Amino acid sequence: MSKTKKRIAVFPGSFDPFTVGHEALVKRTIHLFDEIIIALGTNSNKQYMFSEAQRKKWIEHVFKNTPGVSVQRFSGLTIDFCKKNNAQYIIRGVRTSTDFEFEKAIAQMNRSLSNIETIFIMPLPEHSAINSTIIRDIVRNNGDASMFVPKGIRFK
Amino acid sequence: MSKTKKRIAVFPGSFDPFTVGHEALVKRTIHLFDEIIIALGTNSNKQYMFSEAQRKKWIEHVFKNTPGVSVQRFSGLTIDFCKKNNAQYIIRGVRTSTDFEFEKAIAQMNRSLSNIETIFIMPLPEHSAINSTIIRDIVRNNGDASMFVPKGIRFK
Amino acid sequence: MSKTKKRIAVFPGSFDPFTVGHEALVKRTIHLFDEIIIALGTNSNKQYMFSEAQRKKWIEHVFKNTPGVSVQRFSGLTIDFCKKNNAQYIIRGVRTSTDFEFEKAIAQMNRSLSNIETIFIMPLPEHSAINSTIIRDIVRNNGDASMFVPKGIRFK
Amino acid sequence: MSKTKKRIAVFPGSFDPFTVGHEALVKRTIHLFDEIIIALGTNSNKQYMFSEAQRKKWIEHVFKNTPGVSVQRFSGLTIDFCKKNNAQYIIRGVRTSTDFEFEKAIAQMNRSLSNIETIFIMPLPEHSAINSTIIRDIVRNNGDASMFVPKGIRFK
Amino acid sequence: MSKTKKRIAVFPGSFDPFTVGHEALVKRTIHLFDEIIIALGTNSNKQYMFSEAQRKKWIEHVFKNTPGVSVQRFSGLTIDFCKKNNAQYIIRGVRTSTDFEFEKAIAQMNRSLSNIETIFIMPLPEHSAINSTIIRDIVRNNGDASMFVPKGIRFK
Amino acid sequence: MSKTKKRIAVFPGSFDPFTVGHEALVKRTIHLFDEIIIALGTNSNKQYMFSEAQRKKWIEHVFKNTPGVSVQRFSGLTIDFCKKNNAQYIIRGVRTSTDFEFEKAIAQMNRSLSNIETIFIMPLPEHSAINSTIIRDIVRNNGDASMFVPKGIRFK
Repeated sequence: MSKTKKRIAVFPGSFDPFTVGHEALVKRTIHLFDEIIIALGTNSNKQYMFSEAQRKKWIEHVFKNTPGVSVQRFSGLTIDFCKKNNAQYIIRGVRTSTDFEFEKAIAQMNRSLSNIETIFIMPLPEHSAINSTIIRDIVRNNGDASMFVPKGIRFK
Repeated sequence: MSKTKKRIAVFPGSFDPFTVGHEALVKRTIHLFDEIIIALGTNSNKQYMFSEAQRKKWIEHVFKNTPGVSVQRFSGLTIDFCKKNNAQYIIRGVRTSTDFEFEKAIAQMNRSLSNIETIFIMPLPEHSAINSTIIRDIVRNNGDASMFVPKGIRFK
Repeated sequence: MSKTKKRIAVFPGSFDPFTVGHEALVKRTIHLFDEIIIALGTNSNKQYMFSEAQRKKWIEHVFKNTPGVSVQRFSGLTIDFCKKNNAQYIIRGVRTSTDFEFEKAIAQMNRSLSNIETIFIMPLPEHSAINSTIIRDIVRNNGDASMFVPKGIRFK
Repeated sequence: MSKTKKRIAVFPGSFDPFTVGHEALVKRTIHLFDEIIIALGTNSNKQYMFSEAQRKKWIEHVFKNTPGVSVQRFSGLTIDFCKKNNAQYIIRGVRTSTDFEFEKAIAQMNRSLSNIETIFIMPLPEHSAINSTIIRDIVRNNGDASMFVPKGIRFK
Repeated sequence: MSKTKKRIAVFPGSFDPFTVGHEALVKRTIHLFDEIIIALGTNSNKQYMFSEAQRKKWIEHVFKNTPGVSVQRFSGLTIDFCKKNNAQYIIRGVRTSTDFEFEKAIAQMNRSLSNIETIFIMPLPEHSAINSTIIRDIVRNNGDASMFVPKGIRFK
Repeated sequence: MSKTKKRIAVFPGSFDPFTVGHEALVKRTIHLFDEIIIALGTNSNKQYMFSEAQRKKWIEHVFKNTPGVSVQRFSGLTIDFCKKNNAQYIIRGVRTSTDFEFEKAIAQMNRSLSNIETIFIMPLPEHSAINSTIIRDIVRNNGDASMFVPKGIRFK
């Protein structure tokens, strides 16, 4: 791999919904890569609160003025998606030691199956408690979760 | 920060001694950066098994044919060393969830004090148990630790 | 908030079933608060082994002679339930480091959304392995789980 | 219990599928016991990717030339299965600290209910990331998971 | 113990130095207790960066207008200090899962030796990375740690 | 290795002091092995509260009527001690997830250097908080730690 090759990273997730933590993670790594593809996972076995179209629209809105960042739907293995897009890196945030163990196993398995490296970023302290599961719980119960998602994301 | 700026990373540690895990980490991130500076920490309050000169020589030997990788001694705060060297990134390996908690706090504190981002890499599975503390214990007791350090490092 | 205001705490859970660990937690914090409301969660998306009526009856039985402790059903956000009951505190037990990470995120999110503080208690050593999931597994397989639940709770 | 009594261990799991990690664990403990019974769990509430017959055949194949190792289906409590088979020990692998917390609680509950001791083994480093959940994900998405399962196990 | 008895808590630590995290913890629990005694530990085997007199003066300064909060030096067992001061509770912050394990053991041992309960509080997200060890490292290396300590604490 | 070979295990530690947790661990594994050698570590870089002679006498006292259990002093690498004593196994207790990470690395390194397997046992719930560090702290401060050590151990 030559040094002049474009550095492309995939940031995979279900983003149900996309949070200020996800947004900060992209902004904090944007200069490290020439291109970041946000890979919106769709898994037919999983139930989402927000439709794929909705989740995609939100992310596009957040990065509409950010060159080098794009969104794509994907299903299947993350490393297959990376290969198709010539990405050599996966970006993952890791908030807790429970996350850590899980992410480590996935990253190591991906590395056994390919040369794709996973790059981990810790959340900013103020984002360390924010996760999509809790946000969904707040939304489901009519609480106000607007402070946990990027400007422009409205739940109703 | 422009996209064409050189991406420089600092990989700090005491490397007492430098292990095959450290070596792999540099090799796995070498294409992500234009330059990696291995920052050999020297802390007057800490006792090292191997002299600074010895540790430096070993690392230089390992990367003597690897353009873009250099070694420097440093003391003081890692972020000050980064600024002096125009590095925007710190690289850290994180093996265990205990490491994770500690590294997270350090990375977050560094981020509060500067714009320097810490990039984390998980070890390859076969390196996940290798750490300098255990190697020193083996060497101290005349065990054979050669399989845990790069070729060319000899404990005698 | 004046010092003479009543200190009210909510102890939320699904209590499916209520264990000796839950019982000890209430008894150990009973003098810290003027009132403890055991909030029996009912979530229409979740399947319970024991009916809500049964779980409520068991808890009422355990504390029938304990002034200051009451039971209420609730659904929705815990902080909304707290506000409705003028409770300033949530009580949670935390047994393991996996629990810890999860509980920390919930407590921090609740604190972002309100002024309600979560107070954590570690289990007594002899209760540290007891959890409702394992008890349900024992009961489902006709094992004897009576030693893990308060006197007066019979699975039949 | 006399020292001359046969030492019998049960290695319970769903083995969906059986991995090289499971295989190594049996081979590494085979001399510690006179007999190891691989207990293939079947839980009617759980969905498996591979049929019970298929999973059993695979394990039998792996150990067909290994005296002292057998496979049996089981449902219900592990300690009841142990008693029925005069086993005094349960063997469990523990890969991560998240696993650890869960396994500790189960082992302690089993010990409260019986005299059966659980013996834990750490994976070899090269097996530390391998788990059945990730393998199923690879297989489901037509990836090549053959390097993570014993020779002779073919997914198609 | 009667409900009308004063609720007294001890918040023990070495506070080398006292941080905004410590300050927030006291302010967040101040209404739960009638009195909080900040117990400044002095251990002749330990080396401190800041003198006991200095650390005490700083804490007194922070709480000089806060009725119900006082500072005392102590050495010896925390539970002995509690008994001498008629305190029924110990307050501890717990930031990470590594902290958690350690604090759990201490709290359980204290509970075996006395009836004193330990009450745990999670840090606010923005304080979750702040710890005295890292602050000392910053100060030692002439970094600016003022944002991590309460107003009025100056390292010079 | 033949099935009829004696199964010998080493239980290494500094045992400063030997606790009821250590005692239980030996008693719970005594039937798994033909011989258990308690290996009393002596490390000239470490400071002990109790002399080696004292620690050895205490352990001998505890097991004076238990055939198959012996005590030996050792220094150097545990695997070298095992080889000298024809032991194929190391026994370790693991109480917390922090312990777990550390013990895993040591066990895996030992396995890379030899064929010696480490067998892990979880503490009984009532012993899960007991550790020698906390006991030394209690003793140093004239607290009563007698309930945490085997009968016959007196700190005076």
